Amino acid sequence: MFESEINAVAWENDRLVLLDQRRLPGEETHVHCETSEAAAEAIRLMVVRGAPAIGIAAAYGAVLAAREAWREDPDHWQLAIQSRLANLAAARPTAVNLAWAIRRMEACCAGITSGDPAPVMLREARAIHEEDRLANRKMGEFGAELISPGSAVLTHCNAGALATGGYGTALGVIRAAWGQNRLIRVYAAETRPWLQGTRLTAWELLRDRIPVTLITDGSAAYLMQQGRVQWVIVGADRITANGDVANKIGTLSHAIAARHCGVRFMVAAPVSTIDLATLDGARIEIEQRAGSEVTEFAGLPLAPKGCDAFNPVFDVTPAGLVDALVTERGVILRPDAEKIAKHCQ
Amino acid sequence: MFESEINAVAWENDRLVLLDQRRLPGEETHVHCETSEAAAEAIRLMVVRGAPAIGIAAAYGAVLAAREAWREDPDHWQLAIQSRLANLAAARPTAVNLAWAIRRMEACCAGITSGDPAPVMLREARAIHEEDRLANRKMGEFGAELISPGSAVLTHCNAGALATGGYGTALGVIRAAWGQNRLIRVYAAETRPWLQGTRLTAWELLRDRIPVTLITDGSAAYLMQQGRVQWVIVGADRITANGDVANKIGTLSHAIAARHCGVRFMVAAPVSTIDLATLDGARIEIEQRAGSEVTEFAGLPLAPKGCDAFNPVFDVTPAGLVDALVTERGVILRPDAEKIAKHCQ
Repeated sequence: MFESEINAVAWENDRLVLLDQRRLPGEETHVHCETSEAAAEAIRLMVVRGAPAIGIAAAYGAVLAAREAWREDPDHWQLAIQSRLANLAAARPTAVNLAWAIRRMEACCAGITSGDPAPVMLREARAIHEEDRLANRKMGEFGAELISPGSAVLTHCNAGALATGGYGTALGVIRAAWGQNRLIRVYAAETRPWLQGTRLTAWELLRDRIPVTLITDGSAAYLMQQGRVQWVIVGADRITANGDVANKIGTLSHAIAARHCGVRFMVAAPVSTIDLATLDGARIEIEQRAGSEVTEFAGLPLAPKGCDAFNPVFDVTPAGLVDALVTERGVILRPDAEKIAKHCQ
Repeated sequence: MFESEINAVAWENDRLVLLDQRRLPGEETHVHCETSEAAAEAIRLMVVRGAPAIGIAAAYGAVLAAREAWREDPDHWQLAIQSRLANLAAARPTAVNLAWAIRRMEACCAGITSGDPAPVMLREARAIHEEDRLANRKMGEFGAELISPGSAVLTHCNAGALATGGYGTALGVIRAAWGQNRLIRVYAAETRPWLQGTRLTAWELLRDRIPVTLITDGSAAYLMQQGRVQWVIVGADRITANGDVANKIGTLSHAIAARHCGVRFMVAAPVSTIDLATLDGARIEIEQRAGSEVTEFAGLPLAPKGCDAFNPVFDVTPAGLVDALVTERGVILRPDAEKIAKHCQ
């Protein structure tokens, strides 16, 4: 199995250590969080990003919260921890795994009947982290089996070690396929406006010596038309009950082009990304961010003064365009409501 | 008719005056060319860009060449002008209209039997310029008729007044439709990596008070899926005998998404863009430019050091995805080889 040594989130010397993703690829620096508030702030400021990675960081943040609450009031620490957990959970509103991880750490709290809660909480946080790593490795193996040797693939945004507990979802599949000598090249779409492809995916793959070629988002259809890629492989932010996939803006465009050009489209995401409570993608609210992300770069104006911009952050790819949905439980080919319900049982 | 006062190319006080498009939208400065070599250099450096605008600039450059040749040797100026015209024609290898304009100016030369050639050449250059303006206005009228009142449209790159003798091809259609109260909004795709949409199209439309909203290239499919645009309207760099359309990279992606989402796709270009000698798009060589256009911005690195990039400048949209091809002669719905041959007779 092809490993990656990239750790976006770690617990070292009794504190949470985060690779500062805002500064990549130019600088490789770490932010050390000694308090639960520092952990919440790091999530808010996007020092760490990617839904699974945020969940893991929050779980370690809950350990810091337990330590603080225990020191503050050993008799009533379970009361004292509440506001700190709420603060962590509110750090990013849309990341599904953040709320999930905090709920799980709360359940852990409730089971502690005596003594310092921090060591017990740390075991739970480490379990969440390790389970995510394992899920990614399983996804990698399942996904890689679908890829014929000699293939080239395209990925969008960053669904890699940096976005997870390690290894990655879409990049997990790519790492596994690379380790099995199935891949000849990875194309990374730059992913405007934040350039996660340029800044994060290219950095991750180069660091693991996997050959990566950057393209503009608008070049993807040309690559597919020319037969230069066989698969598009992406992660997901939310998958609805019918199999519609919310992911970084630009994903839909690749999915439509893939179907048109006979290129296959794979989504790799843990089962926790599947939201059975939401029937289809039309019911997902698409976050819109400031137009200045499009009209400016690093504080410099690109567009003429007063120019309006529309900046949706996600789009929804209909299930009908997905050839394979890969989770830690296996592969769903041509996902639909029935197959997904069965998969999640 | 809705007019535009933007002039990318002009002849004033016996010299060629070019709006410096490298500095837009931040600065509105002009480059004055007093010699044919200065004109060639301005084309090379992309002070002026857009195939029709380059052709017009080269035609005025030929007037400067005639003046130089006449001063150098009034008896043999037709010999002395040759190397200067060749220098102009070689300034950009791929711009079709450049070679066409120089050939027309050479034919004009050949017809001059006595006296200073510059005034005769200037009349011919002005005719080329005026014919282009007129062609754009006709295209605008023909194209606008296809657009239902209340529509929103998406355009890519810059096929506007800045790219032509004035008014524009795709933006000519948009200007005419706006003047007829058919449009509610124009979306401009930023057009990575050079950002012609952000820098040039937004500037042109804002200046003419046409409401424009900038989007990333990857947001186009989402807009179409959401029913926010009814037409995609683009220019063309070359149209082959069968109707395939070479245009700025990213165009193909929009065309595929448009067909998938039931949005219509219009190409506006003068008849001179149709290359009957090339059978189909597969025979067009796609120019590839430096990867640094993708991995860097304004000299600053975006990607990790050593990251490779693939940077094709154009793509080819198959004729089958084109709903309407608009020239100064009229509209071809669902263009194919037979319709195009008849149109060009």
